[in-house]
Amino acid sequence: MRAIQITEFGGPEVLNVADLPDPVAGPGQLLVEVSRAGVNFADTHQAEDSYLSKTELPLVPGGEVVGRTADGRRVVALTGSGGYAEKAVAAAGMAWDVPEAVDDVTALGMIIQGASAWVLLRRSTHLEPGETVVVHAAAGGVGTLAVQIAKAWGAGRVIATASSKEKRELALELGADVAVDPAEPDLTAALIEANGGRRVDIVLEMTGGRVTDQSLRALAPFGRLAFYGMASREAPSPVQPATLLAHSTTIAGMWLAHVFQMPGDVMGTALRELFGLVADGRLRVVSGGEYGLSEARRAHEDLRARRSTGKLVLDPAR
Amino acid sequence: MRAIQITEFGGPEVLNVADLPDPVAGPGQLLVEVSRAGVNFADTHQAEDSYLSKTELPLVPGGEVVGRTADGRRVVALTGSGGYAEKAVAAAGMAWDVPEAVDDVTALGMIIQGASAWVLLRRSTHLEPGETVVVHAAAGGVGTLAVQIAKAWGAGRVIATASSKEKRELALELGADVAVDPAEPDLTAALIEANGGRRVDIVLEMTGGRVTDQSLRALAPFGRLAFYGMASREAPSPVQPATLLAHSTTIAGMWLAHVFQMPGDVMGTALRELFGLVADGRLRVVSGGEYGLSEARRAHEDLRARRSTGKLVLDPAR
Repeated sequence: MRAIQITEFGGPEVLNVADLPDPVAGPGQLLVEVSRAGVNFADTHQAEDSYLSKTELPLVPGGEVVGRTADGRRVVALTGSGGYAEKAVAAAGMAWDVPEAVDDVTALGMIIQGASAWVLLRRSTHLEPGETVVVHAAAGGVGTLAVQIAKAWGAGRVIATASSKEKRELALELGADVAVDPAEPDLTAALIEANGGRRVDIVLEMTGGRVTDQSLRALAPFGRLAFYGMASREAPSPVQPATLLAHSTTIAGMWLAHVFQMPGDVMGTALRELFGLVADGRLRVVSGGEYGLSEARRAHEDLRARRSTGKLVLDPAR
Repeated sequence: MRAIQITEFGGPEVLNVADLPDPVAGPGQLLVEVSRAGVNFADTHQAEDSYLSKTELPLVPGGEVVGRTADGRRVVALTGSGGYAEKAVAAAGMAWDVPEAVDDVTALGMIIQGASAWVLLRRSTHLEPGETVVVHAAAGGVGTLAVQIAKAWGAGRVIATASSKEKRELALELGADVAVDPAEPDLTAALIEANGGRRVDIVLEMTGGRVTDQSLRALAPFGRLAFYGMASREAPSPVQPATLLAHSTTIAGMWLAHVFQMPGDVMGTALRELFGLVADGRLRVVSGGEYGLSEARRAHEDLRARRSTGKLVLDPAR
């Protein structure tokens, strides 16, 4: 089969097309004929071995695929690695059925970004109808979906933040009620003003540093801030539990890796609900472009240069 | 009417029985003929003017009463002050109907302690059936109720902590599955051991200091610690949001004062559910003793000496 193989670590130049033996599904695994493979920023770290977990060579990168199993199921699956290929292997428990009404790019957009947005709003912050939700990085993978899901679930007001005018316009197109520049010197005041002078109920935050600090101070009593990333690489200020008590504030950390281990078929429930919103026309994935397998280098270049907005996928057939 | 009046700040000796004019209900207020008045530790602070908010003299202490309104409703009400008396005034929105099946002491136990336990489990930590709940200070006002409510709502295991053998036995009588001494040098390990070697899902914490720190480290991914007091007067260590992210941990501050301002009739919902559990025999208030109005000094002495366990009430008729 055709696949991308890495035999030495580095930038996009280490992504080479290779002809490899088909992978073989072991016990409890499924072989998936890949229709499309998702491209994530984490893959660029994996290629240069700068990711949290260390990588062994040779490697076929790619952590998520959509395609068909031998018995004809159409599934979206987490693979760990091996996704940039015509065939990939996934644990049976890490593959979920995709309704025919949901296209490949959308299915891939749901498995990590969609499930994250679902968990943030349903389990980390427990959105109640009528509440105000601030979505930072609202033009990002999780943000674009969180804006739409919050509206679909009855948020009273969604306040989006994004660093450029184009990104803020995208957030408004997706249903945000108002968009704010996170570079506002007094972000606390800007968020409260965007909420009509009232403090906000929920903040979804993956930036870190002053954005976290100033967002916390914009919360109403019983407000919740979900912290799920630190894209700026700057740590927020430490938090005193006594301060959380004085303002009845909740901070909820959320790391993707734990979502896949949650008991009670949380992923299955999340994906069924998300696919339902897609089928109802209430949720869409912003497509960032489709690349052939032979264009994998260009996909990584575009990602690294932050030229892309939306979900990037590879077509292993070309 | 007979009432306790304070004309100078101090200890129990400043609580004197006085004959005062009946209070008059203003617009939006109810006059309540007091059947029983609750005695809270906060009242001892109010008497010596060491409470968070400053107090003006002369003062009739007492923040909660149960009794009848002029039109025959039986209500439990928050009064701010004025409760240690034959008649008291409350805002109409701070008075809730009490079913006849619920006795006076139980009704008084629900308005602050019961509502706190309800909010901690329902809104701060969102208990799911099967989860493990650690209740610190399990023999206390909130703790005794939280143990029972967690079991009634399907907690898989309730781990109680309390500082004496007698208090731990009380917690077990109330339904806790296991009781732990919070003075255990490695409280993290003790809690995990009490949970059969698994990390815990929920911690209700009002102690502070090392109990908070070590409890946080006992949480499973997506675990939640609700922090609602700092009885030891020792602050917990500051919390790094990045650490919350790495372990998918939630910390939820909860201050009583905010509960009464929550939108959407949260108090009404909480009290209806709590009274339902009482009527079903699944929730009881541990009575700490009933005192006559003329024994108010002794009630405060017992509270300050920590001689009492359970809910203390005054009977204004004697």
